Amino acid sequence: MKFIRFTKDSNTYQGVLKENVVEVIEGYFFGEWNYTGESFLKNEVQLLAPLEPKHIIGIGANFVGSKEDLPETQPEIPVFFFKPTTSVIGPEEEIVIPEAIDQVKFESELAIVIGKEAKNLNEEDVLDYIFGYTVANDVTAPQFFREDGHWMVGKSFDTFTPLGPVIETELDPFNVVVEARLNGEKKQHSATELMIVPIRRMISYLSNVMTLNKGDVILTGSPLGAELVNAGDTIECEIKEIGVLRNTFTAAKEKINS
Amino acid sequence: MKFIRFTKDSNTYQGVLKENVVEVIEGYFFGEWNYTGESFLKNEVQLLAPLEPKHIIGIGANFVGSKEDLPETQPEIPVFFFKPTTSVIGPEEEIVIPEAIDQVKFESELAIVIGKEAKNLNEEDVLDYIFGYTVANDVTAPQFFREDGHWMVGKSFDTFTPLGPVIETELDPFNVVVEARLNGEKKQHSATELMIVPIRRMISYLSNVMTLNKGDVILTGSPLGAELVNAGDTIECEIKEIGVLRNTFTAAKEKINS
Repeated sequence: MKFIRFTKDSNTYQGVLKENVVEVIEGYFFGEWNYTGESFLKNEVQLLAPLEPKHIIGIGANFVGSKEDLPETQPEIPVFFFKPTTSVIGPEEEIVIPEAIDQVKFESELAIVIGKEAKNLNEEDVLDYIFGYTVANDVTAPQFFREDGHWMVGKSFDTFTPLGPVIETELDPFNVVVEARLNGEKKQHSATELMIVPIRRMISYLSNVMTLNKGDVILTGSPLGAELVNAGDTIECEIKEIGVLRNTFTAAKEKINS
Repeated sequence: MKFIRFTKDSNTYQGVLKENVVEVIEGYFFGEWNYTGESFLKNEVQLLAPLEPKHIIGIGANFVGSKEDLPETQPEIPVFFFKPTTSVIGPEEEIVIPEAIDQVKFESELAIVIGKEAKNLNEEDVLDYIFGYTVANDVTAPQFFREDGHWMVGKSFDTFTPLGPVIETELDPFNVVVEARLNGEKKQHSATELMIVPIRRMISYLSNVMTLNKGDVILTGSPLGAELVNAGDTIECEIKEIGVLRNTFTAAKEKINS
């Protein structure tokens, strides 16, 4: 099932996307909900990010180029990081390149949406706690990374986490390909089997650190091929079974005070 | 004014603390609120963390030992990091030392509570966006820090961000002393004038990266003197004008699955 959030005539709705038809629901898709009977055509509505996350957690450098490159041992402490929920935008919204720099990086990713409170999970139980999956673009400004490894500033600008277009609840996350096209040209294209820290281990590890909750979003890492881009470029992040997350980059209009 | 959250007979309230009396309020202290007329004695209630933050942002290594040690230039990109809101506990709650390690570090800090949406602030406007101040303990497990500088895991365990006891709205943050006592013995005691990145610059910088919102909490860094502690130890973080934030460390009871 493909859950969406959208606006139509300045009202915000939740709905279920069925091919080109959006059926409106009431309630909250994590819990109780019902069809209202109202529907729209997809091209009559403006999609929003499919949820307002509670936490957004990313993992760094989590893909290899081919299965032979997968390491034999897992990292003892994976490179996790947070992104602020203020960085979330939806499909077709503009990604703003911060003042004082010219370029930022796109990173197409499979994003996991947690469906219920999860603490101290075993790897074999992880999938029971996943509500669904969406596509994320983990936009990054490497010029705002510190040399000593602190990424917070470079990951946290407003508009740096496009999410969407839908939350697909029936995906097999082990059999999808994460893609990105820059101005129509293929840049990323990797199966999720190329993840170094695989999904079950990633969520199990995290749940042993912090309680995960309904609405937490975990970005599972980006394939090789991410590049620096400029204002005016258009990025399409795609997982075929979920959809295309398309955004355009623009230059900041306001000054950084420092 | 000292705002608190507390429980009494399994009900949760907000209130204003006036010496040893708690006056109950209705509404939300960030916006419209009124006294209900009900009151309790302070020792009849159980304090909670004084708010449920939206984001928690910390800054690393932000104190020097004396004014002569303050650097002449500001760091180009300060070491900011996020802590998850799931790490928040209140006064007198137990801080849980994770499985597989013996010791964690306390860090007593002045915590800023943002009062309204703040974007691209100039330094001179920062104080207008601060609702009030509380005390934080930025508990940290350095054994879960990666050598390449990624701190997320070591900062993010449940119970690792005690906050309280109150939000003081009338503080002069430039004229307070941040203290910590471990089992009654003084360990930290520094005036906030020893901050490397001062408050106005810190919040201005952050607001130029991400939109800050009502309920965001910024931990302004910990004085020299933080130490590793063990299960059974008691830590009191204090800023005299705000109060004492007291917690005891305990060992984790559940296993980390890995």
